[in-house]
Amino acid sequence: MTVSYPTDSVGLVSPQKFQFEQPLSLECGRMLPRFEMMVETYGTLNADKSNAILICHALSGHHHAAGYHDANDKKTGWWDACIGPGKAIDTSKFFVVAINNIGGCHGSTGPTSPNPENDNRPYGPDFPLVTVRDWVKTQAMLSDRLEIQTWYAVVGGSLGGMQALQWSLDYPDRLQKCVIIASAPKLSAQNIAFNEVARQSILSDPDFHDGRYLEKDSYPKRGLILARMVGHITYLSEEAMMQKFGRDLKSGKFMYGFDVEFQVESYLRYQGERFSRNFDANTYLIMTKALDYFDPAREYEQSLKAAMANTQCKFLVISFTTDWRFSPERSQEIVDALISNQKPVSYLDIDAEQGHDSFLFPIPLYVKSLQAFLAGKSQAQTSTQEQA
Amino acid sequence: MTVSYPTDSVGLVSPQKFQFEQPLSLECGRMLPRFEMMVETYGTLNADKSNAILICHALSGHHHAAGYHDANDKKTGWWDACIGPGKAIDTSKFFVVAINNIGGCHGSTGPTSPNPENDNRPYGPDFPLVTVRDWVKTQAMLSDRLEIQTWYAVVGGSLGGMQALQWSLDYPDRLQKCVIIASAPKLSAQNIAFNEVARQSILSDPDFHDGRYLEKDSYPKRGLILARMVGHITYLSEEAMMQKFGRDLKSGKFMYGFDVEFQVESYLRYQGERFSRNFDANTYLIMTKALDYFDPAREYEQSLKAAMANTQCKFLVISFTTDWRFSPERSQEIVDALISNQKPVSYLDIDAEQGHDSFLFPIPLYVKSLQAFLAGKSQAQTSTQEQA
Repeated sequence: MTVSYPTDSVGLVSPQKFQFEQPLSLECGRMLPRFEMMVETYGTLNADKSNAILICHALSGHHHAAGYHDANDKKTGWWDACIGPGKAIDTSKFFVVAINNIGGCHGSTGPTSPNPENDNRPYGPDFPLVTVRDWVKTQAMLSDRLEIQTWYAVVGGSLGGMQALQWSLDYPDRLQKCVIIASAPKLSAQNIAFNEVARQSILSDPDFHDGRYLEKDSYPKRGLILARMVGHITYLSEEAMMQKFGRDLKSGKFMYGFDVEFQVESYLRYQGERFSRNFDANTYLIMTKALDYFDPAREYEQSLKAAMANTQCKFLVISFTTDWRFSPERSQEIVDALISNQKPVSYLDIDAEQGHDSFLFPIPLYVKSLQAFLAGKSQAQTSTQEQA
Repeated sequence: MTVSYPTDSVGLVSPQKFQFEQPLSLECGRMLPRFEMMVETYGTLNADKSNAILICHALSGHHHAAGYHDANDKKTGWWDACIGPGKAIDTSKFFVVAINNIGGCHGSTGPTSPNPENDNRPYGPDFPLVTVRDWVKTQAMLSDRLEIQTWYAVVGGSLGGMQALQWSLDYPDRLQKCVIIASAPKLSAQNIAFNEVARQSILSDPDFHDGRYLEKDSYPKRGLILARMVGHITYLSEEAMMQKFGRDLKSGKFMYGFDVEFQVESYLRYQGERFSRNFDANTYLIMTKALDYFDPAREYEQSLKAAMANTQCKFLVISFTTDWRFSPERSQEIVDALISNQKPVSYLDIDAEQGHDSFLFPIPLYVKSLQAFLAGKSQAQTSTQEQA
């Protein structure tokens, strides 16, 4: 059987697993004796290893960012809209590396992995809480393994954007460009509050079993569904929800019961249900805590300017007008800190309807701007700021 | 022991229970054989019964709107900020009637009441889903009982504002003034989505027992906590949360665990916990469904203008700048429908920080405007619109 893929697709791809046998000390004070990272690459690394782009993923993302895993795959990687030959992150020019972060549940060492210190039973709740800084550290270890001294660019949306930002702080000489999309320099109280609701949904589910559900051949399905439902509301704009569902009724009339009445209920339940089958609850907890903890200005008396003073790369910061999870004002905080340091930064606030999720969509101006920034010279220029 | 109350307090108050022995047919097609309503009144009804104001409550409200229930009471009624001698709703001038709606859990017939058709066991999930229109109908029956032919005003915030609006449609000649605060002419898809998360939290709690938890001597505590947590986030503005909690840590440092780390988590858990002890889960479900169903324009091919064409009262519509649950734009929809009908309406968008909850606070301009509207002549004047 011959399978053909779109010409702008990376086509069939396979992940690789990288083993790291040295102990990894983490920000929480604990140590991982060893770890593995799942990695996918697209495109070809050039001779001087100057064309590598690292893709950092968001809360529920992973290493499968583009293309197909097998011929029957109907779904592409999560950022296929932007990664491929001729696309914004052009795999005919760049060598693209996408990873699954540790603590994840897609093959990298995480709560579902065997814990060598506990008879190789799943780590479960004993997996340490990892931070954005920890992830960036493991990503730098991967860079060493790949012999990539300097990334042409580190790119991420949402929680991935926080990792890109952290790269510019922790390894300022190891990236030329940094792309921070739909992100924030730290969570607001409201952001933390939503994460806390998601966590409590999982933690209070009797099937959570203090995090040892795998050993009980169970999982906190109800908690995961609720966590995803509440998360999902914050990913979509009110406008997008209204356009997509409005007040449409599933059966055309009020049923006066607790089965699905409105289409938006049906959609949320479906999304929650699907997610609960494919995502590990302990990983969800870890990801939300990593979001909560991220706050690079914390060590600099709340001065983001001071935190970003030593960055050396060129920045592109992108926000979306209807994103209320990480609103444009949050991106502007990053931009302001860079400008006050006279660092090179381009900022785009893209008019888009899809809310926080906009970063996953091939919105023309967004894609074009990302492509132009990556194609452009990497030397630091003067600060520029654009409004879309 | 002598207890003294503030001079602008209604002081010690006692609720009364009104019995309605005739069957009540409901919008859902079902019938309540009889019902009771808990009522509190403040002030004195004048001879011609022209000074009565009806207070409609929101999701978790009830008949105890002002004053104290006993001498040791530390907490006043829920709208004490606005009801009392000399306050916005001045009990030295007006006879104020506050009710607990049916389906509630504060004494009026609801899911915790004995079901005469089931051996007087608690109704539980067999209590019918009541609507805003049903509530207004029972409120009109109460008006008859009190021999109040025409309310000087019907006043409500949030879900209470929807009842006030419904009064102007269903009994246009029985109110002179209508005050609709922090409300909306119907829920958006996002509003419904948040309600659905709250409902699923309760429905999926194993202690919900299909709604028959009282018979099992149990209640869905976890579900109620989650429902209230998510609700609470939508009642507060992002700004208010940031000012109140910021990213403050409970112990001053990151603990890297799932106990409370941020103050905002502590607050939400406390609020959820307290609420879960005092509120019935079936009532919570009923209240959220009543919100979802409210949509007076539905019967008029989505024309709110057509729905409001026959109103005869004078309107005051108030919104709050940081309310994102029912944003000022939603109030503006009501105002626009009234203006296009050339109905008398004053509109105020009050600059306030407390989000949706602002309607419960004694914000000076808000209180002053409410007081002025209630003090003013009730005759229909030309449409006016003011921006605070």
